Amino acid sequence: MQAADSDTEQWLDAVAWNSDGLVAVIAQEVGSGEVLMLAWMNREALRRTVALGEAVYWSRSRGRLWHKGESSGHVQHVEDIRLDCDGDAVLLTVRQDGGIACHTGRHRCFYRQLTDAGWRSVEPVLKAPEAIYGK
Amino acid sequence: MQAADSDTEQWLDAVAWNSDGLVAVIAQEVGSGEVLMLAWMNREALRRTVALGEAVYWSRSRGRLWHKGESSGHVQHVEDIRLDCDGDAVLLTVRQDGGIACHTGRHRCFYRQLTDAGWRSVEPVLKAPEAIYGK
Repeated sequence: MQAADSDTEQWLDAVAWNSDGLVAVIAQEVGSGEVLMLAWMNREALRRTVALGEAVYWSRSRGRLWHKGESSGHVQHVEDIRLDCDGDAVLLTVRQDGGIACHTGRHRCFYRQLTDAGWRSVEPVLKAPEAIYGK
Repeated sequence: MQAADSDTEQWLDAVAWNSDGLVAVIAQEVGSGEVLMLAWMNREALRRTVALGEAVYWSRSRGRLWHKGESSGHVQHVEDIRLDCDGDAVLLTVRQDGGIACHTGRHRCFYRQLTDAGWRSVEPVLKAPEAIYGK
């Protein structure tokens, strides 16, 4: 993928980091076009994502950088990075290793569909979380 | 689109509203699969979106409900609503009236691509904002 000039960080300054120093990041799968997940990055996560060509997020629950796939093997290879009009959302185009983005073992995190009966799970578990994480 | 049971609001309780009472919402275009924008909803915005079948967001800058298209005519007709695994992100599938989602007059808000030279605008302005908003 593209590597922004590492000598300057003007491109990082263009992001409208929120009060926690984070920006919302959407991961969309190349080919299928499916939206896989929404996560967050801080400045270091976005810098590393560009340097590595793989998605590195900021885990708000764990309070640390999270190289997606570090435990599961489900790495996201980044092919394109977009910034929105007001700078507070990023869109990644990714190739998803293993075909599984969600920690529940589903293809993607958006597996609950709103129906007359409320939210209904409409996508199958492709691999049991215990098998993914070896717990 | 689907209308969740209006007698109960259990489906709204399933959303993990943040400390500001908001949830992040991605709008994806039916057909093209393009991610148009990221915005926010509060409980009332999501309730109205479902009742109306058109996207109603919470404008953080204006501090009020924002029926997308109320000024521009660029209404988003909602065909599907998904919730992610941890309940803090919503994905809408929409038909975008006018083919313009962005207030800059572009098809979508994610028009800046990261390149070696930093962010570069790669999508054309389809209609001047002055013409959209009549200013």
